[in-house]
Amino acid sequence: MIIQLENNASEDQILKVKESLEDIGYKANEVNTQKGKYLIGIGKKDFDIRAIGQLPGIKDIHIVSDDYKLVSNKWKVNPTVIDLGNGVIIGGDEFAIMSGPCSIEGEEQIADTIDFLKSQGVKIMRGGVYKPRSSPYSFRGLGIDGLKLWYKMAREAGLKIITEVMQVSQIEEMHDYVDIYQVGARNTQNFNLLDELGKVDKAVMIKRGISGTIDELLYSAEYVFSGGNEKLLLCERGIRTYEKASRNTFDINAIPILKEKTHLPVIADPSHGIGIRKHVGEVAMASVIAGADGVIFESHSCPEKAYSDGQQTLDFKESEKLIKAMKETHKLRKAFY
Amino acid sequence: MIIQLENNASEDQILKVKESLEDIGYKANEVNTQKGKYLIGIGKKDFDIRAIGQLPGIKDIHIVSDDYKLVSNKWKVNPTVIDLGNGVIIGGDEFAIMSGPCSIEGEEQIADTIDFLKSQGVKIMRGGVYKPRSSPYSFRGLGIDGLKLWYKMAREAGLKIITEVMQVSQIEEMHDYVDIYQVGARNTQNFNLLDELGKVDKAVMIKRGISGTIDELLYSAEYVFSGGNEKLLLCERGIRTYEKASRNTFDINAIPILKEKTHLPVIADPSHGIGIRKHVGEVAMASVIAGADGVIFESHSCPEKAYSDGQQTLDFKESEKLIKAMKETHKLRKAFY
Amino acid sequence: MIIQLENNASEDQILKVKESLEDIGYKANEVNTQKGKYLIGIGKKDFDIRAIGQLPGIKDIHIVSDDYKLVSNKWKVNPTVIDLGNGVIIGGDEFAIMSGPCSIEGEEQIADTIDFLKSQGVKIMRGGVYKPRSSPYSFRGLGIDGLKLWYKMAREAGLKIITEVMQVSQIEEMHDYVDIYQVGARNTQNFNLLDELGKVDKAVMIKRGISGTIDELLYSAEYVFSGGNEKLLLCERGIRTYEKASRNTFDINAIPILKEKTHLPVIADPSHGIGIRKHVGEVAMASVIAGADGVIFESHSCPEKAYSDGQQTLDFKESEKLIKAMKETHKLRKAFY
Amino acid sequence: MIIQLENNASEDQILKVKESLEDIGYKANEVNTQKGKYLIGIGKKDFDIRAIGQLPGIKDIHIVSDDYKLVSNKWKVNPTVIDLGNGVIIGGDEFAIMSGPCSIEGEEQIADTIDFLKSQGVKIMRGGVYKPRSSPYSFRGLGIDGLKLWYKMAREAGLKIITEVMQVSQIEEMHDYVDIYQVGARNTQNFNLLDELGKVDKAVMIKRGISGTIDELLYSAEYVFSGGNEKLLLCERGIRTYEKASRNTFDINAIPILKEKTHLPVIADPSHGIGIRKHVGEVAMASVIAGADGVIFESHSCPEKAYSDGQQTLDFKESEKLIKAMKETHKLRKAFY
Repeated sequence: MIIQLENNASEDQILKVKESLEDIGYKANEVNTQKGKYLIGIGKKDFDIRAIGQLPGIKDIHIVSDDYKLVSNKWKVNPTVIDLGNGVIIGGDEFAIMSGPCSIEGEEQIADTIDFLKSQGVKIMRGGVYKPRSSPYSFRGLGIDGLKLWYKMAREAGLKIITEVMQVSQIEEMHDYVDIYQVGARNTQNFNLLDELGKVDKAVMIKRGISGTIDELLYSAEYVFSGGNEKLLLCERGIRTYEKASRNTFDINAIPILKEKTHLPVIADPSHGIGIRKHVGEVAMASVIAGADGVIFESHSCPEKAYSDGQQTLDFKESEKLIKAMKETHKLRKAFY
Repeated sequence: MIIQLENNASEDQILKVKESLEDIGYKANEVNTQKGKYLIGIGKKDFDIRAIGQLPGIKDIHIVSDDYKLVSNKWKVNPTVIDLGNGVIIGGDEFAIMSGPCSIEGEEQIADTIDFLKSQGVKIMRGGVYKPRSSPYSFRGLGIDGLKLWYKMAREAGLKIITEVMQVSQIEEMHDYVDIYQVGARNTQNFNLLDELGKVDKAVMIKRGISGTIDELLYSAEYVFSGGNEKLLLCERGIRTYEKASRNTFDINAIPILKEKTHLPVIADPSHGIGIRKHVGEVAMASVIAGADGVIFESHSCPEKAYSDGQQTLDFKESEKLIKAMKETHKLRKAFY
Repeated sequence: MIIQLENNASEDQILKVKESLEDIGYKANEVNTQKGKYLIGIGKKDFDIRAIGQLPGIKDIHIVSDDYKLVSNKWKVNPTVIDLGNGVIIGGDEFAIMSGPCSIEGEEQIADTIDFLKSQGVKIMRGGVYKPRSSPYSFRGLGIDGLKLWYKMAREAGLKIITEVMQVSQIEEMHDYVDIYQVGARNTQNFNLLDELGKVDKAVMIKRGISGTIDELLYSAEYVFSGGNEKLLLCERGIRTYEKASRNTFDINAIPILKEKTHLPVIADPSHGIGIRKHVGEVAMASVIAGADGVIFESHSCPEKAYSDGQQTLDFKESEKLIKAMKETHKLRKAFY
Repeated sequence: MIIQLENNASEDQILKVKESLEDIGYKANEVNTQKGKYLIGIGKKDFDIRAIGQLPGIKDIHIVSDDYKLVSNKWKVNPTVIDLGNGVIIGGDEFAIMSGPCSIEGEEQIADTIDFLKSQGVKIMRGGVYKPRSSPYSFRGLGIDGLKLWYKMAREAGLKIITEVMQVSQIEEMHDYVDIYQVGARNTQNFNLLDELGKVDKAVMIKRGISGTIDELLYSAEYVFSGGNEKLLLCERGIRTYEKASRNTFDINAIPILKEKTHLPVIADPSHGIGIRKHVGEVAMASVIAGADGVIFESHSCPEKAYSDGQQTLDFKESEKLIKAMKETHKLRKAFY
């Protein structure tokens, strides 16, 4: 059960609602986000909603049968729209494109990418400065200095930044230099990280776990939302299966299923989803027609020389074609849904 | 190695080529299809292609490094086009739609479906008369009598028929009443069935195994082709994974990967691929934009009353919308690839 | 619901029971096996068991909530024991060892294996004469002539034979030369094959599908049992997962779970379960301690020269050690369970 | 390549070796653990080992073809033995048993468990004070206060403690109250956490990821080892597959494969591996006979009342039986390997 409180509800009023919840055998979790105040009632017992509904301070009550609550479509019918400022909006009728290299490598590469993205009207740049790597001996990214350089250049060009945060201690140092914190597939269930991102007033995109279920992704989002942060995006990036002809198995089913279950925007990552450069475009377009609110894909002026993920990175010419194709595909989607 | 022989190559000439193959340490498999004569050389040794190439009776020689040979794109660049007669063509520039119920249930249902398909210009009707069921106590289909009835009605209406064959003994009895034999996901590696279907002069559509790899699907097709039957279609229908939010995980990646590897037409089955009625359409459109040569989906005048698979079957209104959407999507695909 | 009928129940009596079943809304499936007569009632409605229980011809009535019925432990508490004759018994307190090559290759190899097995007191020899192969160009086995030769030699030595049957048409030709028909992992859901094996008076061992569930294995066994054949064994042989460090992932959990769910003997196949020669023994012993009624493993006088599966085949010295170890392990198992 | 340095190698000597490594095109990673000094050379080029081998300060050079180095069996033939003090030793000839509740719940529960473990001669107690939970609304553990209470009681009883650490900031606060830090399945690739645990002078047990590969587990261990901590244990706890008859699929194959690949002790967690109370014992014994150096399992005086994981937790009577059985099984294992 989700109880939306009036924004000006008094502490006393809230306490009363909490006590009423406990009286009917429910545990009450207080949630204060950038946008509103909620009490999440956790329990299984039947009860008469009128017993609570009349209490002062309450705006609305929603019965949500899912185990995740705040991220569920069942209480919030309108899609979540995230405004990054300067007219950059994700969700709702907007279609978001995020692109850039796997790893931020240096000034020249950043400049090349920015030039390209600007020429295409793309407003959000992706790139990694902290890189999770299976082997401790691999390149682990340029770190905070790389981020600062990148931020300076991106801001001058009017671009927004999405980049991966790997641990709690990085949240604060990265804070002033990111627009969207990305939680990687290996950290989808790093609950401490999610807890802390709930306290931040920046958007957060959570990638589905390497073999995470759709429900686990929603639960992880619930961590951030119930921690106080409503600016949330979900990302399908392929799952691990027995099939080795592709890097991952992009779960196209997850797109419409997520759109049905949650009000949060759903982004597709076809680069990791298939992992084969020449087919990234087709998986991207498939995601768009299936209902994704945006696509994040890896691009590089010279994929052959990229520090990482070159095999699934598009060059700028391929990227240009894809961007055009995705826009057309998004239009077609809108014509039918 | 694939050696295409002249259609009028003499037995003597073929024998000479075989001997030459054996001389260089290759095993020679003779293949005679509806369209041509081939010798498939299996071996690993290096050799000088000129040692064989000059022999009389040889049309062309192709080195194919894949373990499957005849179904590989590496020797046959042009896509396979299957002509079912009366202008019903699959593959190449054509986009094929196949629809109908999971199970053939009786005259009225057949008539309803035929009327609907005709109204939409759909030329291939699907339906099951032999149903593979996990439990021996479930409905197993109307069998050959159901097929005969269906065939009579479909032919009058000018529709082609695709239906599942489950065992060798059914091939002959079904022969005069089908246009495409379908090999189900549980029989993808029923090699005896594949062997026998190689001897038949009807089209065969092989579904990917329940947890089959892309390569296994290609190998299974190689059985039919090397048995003598080039009229082959492949079908992606979702694979079994840990994710239980959908019936199967539709492997959208498989579409472009198969199109890259083989010259055979690739059909998508979104009904089994997601198993959720309200999302079948989105997966279907995703398949089309990703490059499928056709879509097979389950439809029924009243899915709620269908004998089987009702939860993933579209009613006629939903089907009509989807057919229109797929055609638009196919056009968009062509504009970019 | 399973209604065990008296063996001398009259047709008239049986008809009455059937009608009573139908009266309460149940579908009645008549099953006649080598051992008994049953009516399997399929339905969901509640009813008063006394309404049927008093009818003449009924020996016992069991409510079985599982969807599979005859193979369930819920009506038959005692384990199924299969007597192959000459004192060769599988199930119950016996521990069965089956060994031999992947493929039957010829007289010398058969003789070597027989000598070895006899020296170890192993009474059941495995080997393939029909080999399911991914590629049509691979060795497919010696066929019926190989089986006849093998049978002759095995019978002289007093050994029983287990070998794979791949299709319906082979059942009859193999009949006089096998003691246990093996249904391979690619045929677990070849329902026509299972139907026909239900009519045979020989034991049948069904392997779990390549990515089959435990329940699907039980359903497949239900096909054979309800077809009339109670002489059934189940075999865990590893499942397909994302992990590629082993050929398959041997599902050790399946052993105790199957033993809990069914009265049928459960055999482990560690050779396919791990696919790595040096570790076959450890997986075999693990199966035994976890409760398997027997182990089937691949052995060869010279695994390096085996026609197939050499990488997972033990030589005779390794086999001897394993046989000894398994016997000790089985003793230990009995001390605790 | 692993270059073991003399413990008294001078900085100057080490620098020379590093330079020589770089001269042959290798990157040199300096590693200082509790036990020794190493240079890990990462590169692919061929070279003459004698070019480096004669330099002063070098104890030994090992070519390790695996991508993980320090955890590989290829340079360290002897198994790693971890001494927790007071005669509690893991690895080598010892067989380790760790048991206790999923969650630490309070004083009485701790006392009950300690009494039981002492009566059985079990020297390592498991329990969670920080609990990773899919839902933010679930019980998340007693935290550091619970750990302090538990530690005090365990130390008085002479027991060692293993408990999960979920984030970097917990490492220090937990440090004085744990003997083995456990890294959970959701954190196997939390590389920052692994980095920090490399700096700690306490043992670390890393669980395999929820769908982690065997190689990924070894890489994660390489993070800790190369960070400076050799006191490492690995834990197989089941993987996520399509099979839902058990909580996870315990990968019995992983036990002998890990033992072949690494010198680190391998612990089995049958509780999570199957997730079904009545079968935990059989999976435990299977692990032991397959070569595990120890078993960690969940026990509770009253599993029905446990805060979490009750369905897979043994009561003390069941635990007593299992402990006895595992010891016998370990003896049998030793008789054959």
